[in-house]
Amino acid sequence: MVSLTVVGLNSGTSIDATAALRSRILGVVRPGAATTLEDVCDLNFALGEEFASAVHNSGIDLNNVDLIASHGQTLWHIPTGERLSTLQMGEPAVISTSTNKTVISNFRTAELALGRQGAPLSGFFEAAILAHPSQTRISQNIGGIGNATVVPSSKVPDSGYFAFDTGPGNVLIDATVRYISKGEAHYDKDGEMGARGESEIDNEAVECFLKRDYFERKPPKTTGREMFSDTLAKEIIDDLRAKGISNDGIVATITRMTSESIVRAYENFVIPVVGHIDEVYICGGGAFNPNIMRHLSARLPRTKVGVLDSTTIGISAAAKEAVLFAVLGFLGLCGRKVAVADMSETRREVVLGCVTPGDNYRSLLKKVAGDEEFMGAGTLGRIFMR
Amino acid sequence: MVSLTVVGLNSGTSIDATAALRSRILGVVRPGAATTLEDVCDLNFALGEEFASAVHNSGIDLNNVDLIASHGQTLWHIPTGERLSTLQMGEPAVISTSTNKTVISNFRTAELALGRQGAPLSGFFEAAILAHPSQTRISQNIGGIGNATVVPSSKVPDSGYFAFDTGPGNVLIDATVRYISKGEAHYDKDGEMGARGESEIDNEAVECFLKRDYFERKPPKTTGREMFSDTLAKEIIDDLRAKGISNDGIVATITRMTSESIVRAYENFVIPVVGHIDEVYICGGGAFNPNIMRHLSARLPRTKVGVLDSTTIGISAAAKEAVLFAVLGFLGLCGRKVAVADMSETRREVVLGCVTPGDNYRSLLKKVAGDEEFMGAGTLGRIFMR
Repeated sequence: MVSLTVVGLNSGTSIDATAALRSRILGVVRPGAATTLEDVCDLNFALGEEFASAVHNSGIDLNNVDLIASHGQTLWHIPTGERLSTLQMGEPAVISTSTNKTVISNFRTAELALGRQGAPLSGFFEAAILAHPSQTRISQNIGGIGNATVVPSSKVPDSGYFAFDTGPGNVLIDATVRYISKGEAHYDKDGEMGARGESEIDNEAVECFLKRDYFERKPPKTTGREMFSDTLAKEIIDDLRAKGISNDGIVATITRMTSESIVRAYENFVIPVVGHIDEVYICGGGAFNPNIMRHLSARLPRTKVGVLDSTTIGISAAAKEAVLFAVLGFLGLCGRKVAVADMSETRREVVLGCVTPGDNYRSLLKKVAGDEEFMGAGTLGRIFMR
Repeated sequence: MVSLTVVGLNSGTSIDATAALRSRILGVVRPGAATTLEDVCDLNFALGEEFASAVHNSGIDLNNVDLIASHGQTLWHIPTGERLSTLQMGEPAVISTSTNKTVISNFRTAELALGRQGAPLSGFFEAAILAHPSQTRISQNIGGIGNATVVPSSKVPDSGYFAFDTGPGNVLIDATVRYISKGEAHYDKDGEMGARGESEIDNEAVECFLKRDYFERKPPKTTGREMFSDTLAKEIIDDLRAKGISNDGIVATITRMTSESIVRAYENFVIPVVGHIDEVYICGGGAFNPNIMRHLSARLPRTKVGVLDSTTIGISAAAKEAVLFAVLGFLGLCGRKVAVADMSETRREVVLGCVTPGDNYRSLLKKVAGDEEFMGAGTLGRIFMR
């Protein structure tokens, strides 16, 4: 069976992997924010340079690398309406000419082109890791956006795994901390502000927030920074300040909005399908916020809430998304079709990704063209399934 | 030797291949014109749908097609400055999911990533068609932008072919006609307006126009709609109107600016290198404007000025650009490196294009992975050379 060494590159909606470009990007990803084609043209190449630098600075010996799988930076995502679309940037030709390696990128576009949501992409990967004969498990990512991959136990009839965005992850909390600290801090480190403000949590504001349209919509559904924006954070801050709530209390309230939105998503859209949730595994930056973890445990008393420890299968939590894209990149280069679970009707399988040839392209072609073994149905599941 | 049937798709800076999106694109490609990431995100997919429709409406039997090579619509191009970049859109995943065929696209990005101009790409193709032992030939494209590929005869010492943008092609003429006709007409059909206004041509304005920086810069150089913009056309129109020149006279003057810019480019940058130009072959929409053709003939009396008749090698003039991208697509998929001539120092060869797998991807891989014959140095020249 063909074996490739793949570097996975990812920068999430938190934009935390592109420090130098962060404020530039934050300036244009707000709804209605004006930009120019000139700026977009340059930003795509600037992001490509940033990703290439990340590879060069990683300490990885490029001599041993076959393929670089780059998710890119999501700049926009339109998962509903007449024409679906998505925009990830970080020019792959910049990465390939800089590293001399073949690059695969743009994993989401084919999904949107087929009328699907293009996010989360992690469904099949999570499902393979979490599948269990008697336990129904959720992998809950709390990155910029929150997303749940639900893997029903084998006892649940007719339930394949499914995934959807629960709502905000850290995006509103981070925006609030940035605003309150005037840009000094970028996130609520160890949940300290939220913990200090716990007694001031405004439950009325939390309930009002959870009445937003997105939370009422049934999955499949995805969202992004365009919906849970800095502008929205600012509105919430203003409302809470008008009620005399302190900065710590504001962070605590917005943290509660976030964690409660996850619980409600389970109550409304998961428990009616699977009956009972046995285990929830948290990953992403939210796993390091004790206020979120404590609230989830309190609100889901019959469910084990822990941190997703993919180290048991050799994958560190921090690298999970990158490993996902490395796996998708491998499959895309080989031409293996996948269907990303999103509870939607259209389960047509499609090859994900777009291949930008580097110096090693022809030797890669030879490696993957001759090998049929991995193409068999179900092989993928067997690779990861415990 | 491997043989593939490739569909070439191209839409030039005239934006004449995307009727439905034309005004939307023209609204954002002006310098400084505001757009949003949301609009860019959607436009990329909308253009993809337009290109997919072009394939479906072409009458081509997709059963016989191996690969679709799509240049995309150029939305911006930054060929100078600290960071070079280019932006072609028309989402390839939309084309591949719609046609089930593998698509190759983004032929220019690797060129810019290497610090080159990324345009014109046609150099190696033109050179192979035009190479002659005793005749120095120029292929002059007059599309939206004008570009020249200069192929010195074998008698010129040390002169490889080179290519550069001469300046505006039809872009300013078209903008003027559109403005004057209030959008009723999109170009000066058969040069009728320009012919009627010939006696009113303002030579002073022509000379002033030719003093612009771009014309003074030495090749390699490329330009685009961002420099020869609707705004510039409007300024010229206003100046000429203030002098009492009629609409026909204005079109004639702007046509003269265009054709004379080509002559000056030859005088300043070609003749000093090659000595004498034997033949100039015009292609693109400008070949159908008798005023341009007549002026070039008059100003280049010892040079044969004709229309490029690629039909002698089986390629219709209208399809030349599309065939170019089909050839580049074939080479890119196979992993054949090319160096695009632009008189620059960095002649590092690179594979151009980015491959989006369709249903036929694995069978394509098998076809091209096993074949080494076409990879030999010089083979490409032999394919096309007469």
